[in-house]
Amino acid sequence: MTDLPFVATASVGEKMYELVTQLYPICRSITGEGVRQTLRILQAHIPLHIHEVPTDTPVFDWTVPKEWNIRQAWIKDPEGKICVDFQNHSLHVLNYSLPVHQTLPLAELKTHLFTLPDKPDWIPYRTSYYNENWGFCLTHNQLLSLKEGNYEVYIDASLKAGNLTYGEYFLPGETTETVLISCHICHPSLANDNLSGISLAVQLAQWLAQKPRRYSYRFLFIPGTIGSITWLSLHETEAFQTVHGLVATLVGDNGPFTYKKSRRGDATIDCAAAHALKHSGFPYTIINFFPYGYDERQYCSPGFNLPVGCLMRTPHGQYPEYHTSADNLALIKPENLTQSYQVYQTILEILEGNQQYINQNPKCEPQLGKRGLYRAISGDNHTRSYEMAMLWILNFSDGSHTLLDIAERAGLPFAVIHQVALLLETHGLLAK
Amino acid sequence: MTDLPFVATASVGEKMYELVTQLYPICRSITGEGVRQTLRILQAHIPLHIHEVPTDTPVFDWTVPKEWNIRQAWIKDPEGKICVDFQNHSLHVLNYSLPVHQTLPLAELKTHLFTLPDKPDWIPYRTSYYNENWGFCLTHNQLLSLKEGNYEVYIDASLKAGNLTYGEYFLPGETTETVLISCHICHPSLANDNLSGISLAVQLAQWLAQKPRRYSYRFLFIPGTIGSITWLSLHETEAFQTVHGLVATLVGDNGPFTYKKSRRGDATIDCAAAHALKHSGFPYTIINFFPYGYDERQYCSPGFNLPVGCLMRTPHGQYPEYHTSADNLALIKPENLTQSYQVYQTILEILEGNQQYINQNPKCEPQLGKRGLYRAISGDNHTRSYEMAMLWILNFSDGSHTLLDIAERAGLPFAVIHQVALLLETHGLLAK
Amino acid sequence: MTDLPFVATASVGEKMYELVTQLYPICRSITGEGVRQTLRILQAHIPLHIHEVPTDTPVFDWTVPKEWNIRQAWIKDPEGKICVDFQNHSLHVLNYSLPVHQTLPLAELKTHLFTLPDKPDWIPYRTSYYNENWGFCLTHNQLLSLKEGNYEVYIDASLKAGNLTYGEYFLPGETTETVLISCHICHPSLANDNLSGISLAVQLAQWLAQKPRRYSYRFLFIPGTIGSITWLSLHETEAFQTVHGLVATLVGDNGPFTYKKSRRGDATIDCAAAHALKHSGFPYTIINFFPYGYDERQYCSPGFNLPVGCLMRTPHGQYPEYHTSADNLALIKPENLTQSYQVYQTILEILEGNQQYINQNPKCEPQLGKRGLYRAISGDNHTRSYEMAMLWILNFSDGSHTLLDIAERAGLPFAVIHQVALLLETHGLLAK
Repeated sequence: MTDLPFVATASVGEKMYELVTQLYPICRSITGEGVRQTLRILQAHIPLHIHEVPTDTPVFDWTVPKEWNIRQAWIKDPEGKICVDFQNHSLHVLNYSLPVHQTLPLAELKTHLFTLPDKPDWIPYRTSYYNENWGFCLTHNQLLSLKEGNYEVYIDASLKAGNLTYGEYFLPGETTETVLISCHICHPSLANDNLSGISLAVQLAQWLAQKPRRYSYRFLFIPGTIGSITWLSLHETEAFQTVHGLVATLVGDNGPFTYKKSRRGDATIDCAAAHALKHSGFPYTIINFFPYGYDERQYCSPGFNLPVGCLMRTPHGQYPEYHTSADNLALIKPENLTQSYQVYQTILEILEGNQQYINQNPKCEPQLGKRGLYRAISGDNHTRSYEMAMLWILNFSDGSHTLLDIAERAGLPFAVIHQVALLLETHGLLAK
Repeated sequence: MTDLPFVATASVGEKMYELVTQLYPICRSITGEGVRQTLRILQAHIPLHIHEVPTDTPVFDWTVPKEWNIRQAWIKDPEGKICVDFQNHSLHVLNYSLPVHQTLPLAELKTHLFTLPDKPDWIPYRTSYYNENWGFCLTHNQLLSLKEGNYEVYIDASLKAGNLTYGEYFLPGETTETVLISCHICHPSLANDNLSGISLAVQLAQWLAQKPRRYSYRFLFIPGTIGSITWLSLHETEAFQTVHGLVATLVGDNGPFTYKKSRRGDATIDCAAAHALKHSGFPYTIINFFPYGYDERQYCSPGFNLPVGCLMRTPHGQYPEYHTSADNLALIKPENLTQSYQVYQTILEILEGNQQYINQNPKCEPQLGKRGLYRAISGDNHTRSYEMAMLWILNFSDGSHTLLDIAERAGLPFAVIHQVALLLETHGLLAK
Repeated sequence: MTDLPFVATASVGEKMYELVTQLYPICRSITGEGVRQTLRILQAHIPLHIHEVPTDTPVFDWTVPKEWNIRQAWIKDPEGKICVDFQNHSLHVLNYSLPVHQTLPLAELKTHLFTLPDKPDWIPYRTSYYNENWGFCLTHNQLLSLKEGNYEVYIDASLKAGNLTYGEYFLPGETTETVLISCHICHPSLANDNLSGISLAVQLAQWLAQKPRRYSYRFLFIPGTIGSITWLSLHETEAFQTVHGLVATLVGDNGPFTYKKSRRGDATIDCAAAHALKHSGFPYTIINFFPYGYDERQYCSPGFNLPVGCLMRTPHGQYPEYHTSADNLALIKPENLTQSYQVYQTILEILEGNQQYINQNPKCEPQLGKRGLYRAISGDNHTRSYEMAMLWILNFSDGSHTLLDIAERAGLPFAVIHQVALLLETHGLLAK
């Protein structure tokens, strides 16, 4: 039998890819209109709430920075021709550049230019959030083509008191225990490194909105680092309601899956992710928590230590296109997005269904035959798995094993164990 | 040095093989005269008590079934010649067949015939305990030779209120803590799958009866599943006196040993079996508990969770002759039975000898030389092992290690550790 | 980056080798003038205290033996020529030989001669501490050259009431919690097997004497077995102040390092030694505790169970020259001694620096940039390691991880973690 009853069709990936395509040109940063524009587009898909947190708000050891906005930016060559233009690519400007308008010789200009000599056709992605500076990013071949002479540079940007903007979508469930799905929204035209995660979160939210939910779900669309610090600082109570969580990012490339465990290492989310990946048929690796990466750094800081892992494909920094203009729409594929969605969905289904049952006839096996449960489903080629599942569930529903524990021990997919547990519950053989 | 001081000689295996030979022709089932006849034969070897439990007695979620007895059964071909005859092989009749006497055309007859198309010379073993039915089992070649026409079928069987019969042999020891040896007795002419286990249990019981016993021992000769459920249901108090247990089955074939751990996984019986196998020199594998197989399913149901493992050679379903007429006297060998007996015996010797001692001179080593213990046994080529054993025992007899723990840690056979511990106890260096 | 900031230079090994050379000719035993002479030479390097414990003092299950002294010993051949002479090699006499002066035929003499037939050019090292006897050790080729005839043997030794002598050097620290470094001093002219350890202990003591110490340090220079038993028996209170310990021996040969864990197996000394070796770049193996070997046998007896391991190169008995005249000055090398010193030093540095800190901003990461800590050391090519170290330390300084735990988890050398922790403490981000 195939392990995962995947109902998601390729169209899910196509829809996710479409959203990424729509968001791609926007110049996002940790604050500013690019973020607002992005969140407003998401509002067309899910009714998320847009929050504004004023500049200088203290958030733990940090303060909310000034808001940065940019309208245009270019460099004119000695002949007065625009040779680098922000209109062409949002990566061309150093993110958080100060406004500038001056003319300067090439040598001096070069101290403000960033390129990748070993990848001469790609534009690097650079930021300068906390050191005031200005600059341009361009391909190394562009740089090589610049002749001696005076260059006019113009950055029409502003850096002043404003707000940090983030989006939140909360789906209440039967309990206030919350599953957190977090993604960062601060990267400009980069497809895999943040747009794939945003798009996946939107898709999951749409799916969850239309089904009954045991848990509540919180989707956060936040600027990396400062966004999670801000949210955690202003919502400690809600943060501690998080019982499972995932940071969604880098889910569109061709690489195998990588699950980075929560700091706890043995949280239910860690077991659920490992189980879903093992039975997914997709290649994957599981790695231990380490204190850098994405917003799991903050969720897993020792004062929170939330059970939040990070499920991605190729980890940050480990694919050559990372943080360059080559992390574009060609790098990600609808079928990869579909697979990533399927694995996330399976994990959430495990969390939802992972009850702990008690065998109501713990002394010896109950007689399955007289209830029509033994060889009951014999038209079904899953019969043997189902019968084994019954025996495993009955034997280990002893008050100290959840269905996920039993699925792991039995070596059977959670979906089978869950379905069979519901059947046994119907027959009064199990109770919660 | 060889690890195991095996005193059992080949004659043990010959005696076991002889008993199997004697029991082989009998048509056993989960109830009926075949079981009684089997147990009466065993009474010639050990004074076991034969218990009868009436039909319809409630036993947990089950009830004791009607008693089944069979006298004769045959099929006559269109020429009136007997072509399948229960007299020739007890497997020819579907176990628990209803009585029948009728004439019917081949096509209709075939719905009551069971064969193994891929093993055309073997008769399958089939039962229908809980669905009333009748049928015959035959070789596939027999089936192919049947011509069109009307066949007379006759099964002189009865299925009516009676008893479930089982045998029990209890050997009291110094304590009421009991070691359980359980084997199933419900299979008809199958040599490895149940007769080898019965024969091994008898041999162990004879050996234990004639030696001092720290533990009490209970030998159960019961029909599979319903027998253990019946016994557990009617003897809960005794069941919970079980401190170690083994289900004995499949001990005559050529395969390597397989020890299936108790549900607890770390019970003393699990450690003792692993230790005995490791030092036996025989190939083996150790597998985790799973909730199907033999009566360990019931002993290890969560309401009992007894420390009962199952020591076999090739596991059920994993040798081609399993549950066919090829599981016959040619499949099992006296030398295999001898080896199995040796390993069981070693395990029981470990359980009996596995005391916890306290070093009476815990601060620094005692001076072994002045007591004649150092190089004391130098004529013996085991000297070095014995000296190392002394040091290991003295160092780890700290109140939290049993002799088995120490044997494992030292990498020495339990028998050496045990013998040396007794010597140290004699010299006052150890106390219980 | 290289892992270990080794400051020790080759000259350390040269100094150690020089001391070994000076001590090599002396005939040591478990008591007597050889030991006193050895300790007096050590007093030229460190102010150790020489203790005398009278013969017959009861020490746990033992008593202090008679004191043995030897002045000369020889065998004269039938022609009256000295053919075996203690003056030539201290191994020539059976250690603890009784005095003897007699003439006897070759056949009878041979019962008092010890050789190594398979290593015909080496003199064996033999002792007879607790069985009164006399004898000579010689090369097997010497033995073969002896002609028939009468031989005069002379051993000018004494075995009478006296003292057991040992040396102790105690360096007080901030606490009375003590690190124990123990080495045996009872072997005569054997270079690796005991002189290398003595020399290493002296060198470590010199280094520690001149630096601030969190822990107190106790260096014991004692005869093997009876020496540690004597010290433990007479100093139980001090013994139980031992919080970490190492037995130093066999540190001059070419073999890879071998760390034998303490009986506890998970003591801090075990983790520190494993960490130091892992980052040393030297080949090594780590083995579990076993109750024979050197004085760790006594320190780790169950009544003490002190956290004392043994760090050596090739273990005792595992190199061919062990306990023969070939364990001489050619077997050990200054560079090997240097390496061993470096590893010991690193272990002690880990123990000294292994504090547990608490992150003062446990909720989310503190802003390192505003403190100049992020990319602060960018001129330094260790930058990335240092930044990672900051994040690891901050994330895991949660009250349940020491710096060594964090170094292990981060896969970074302790020295880096320690240095960065001090920096973070300076900035108020960590507190003890």
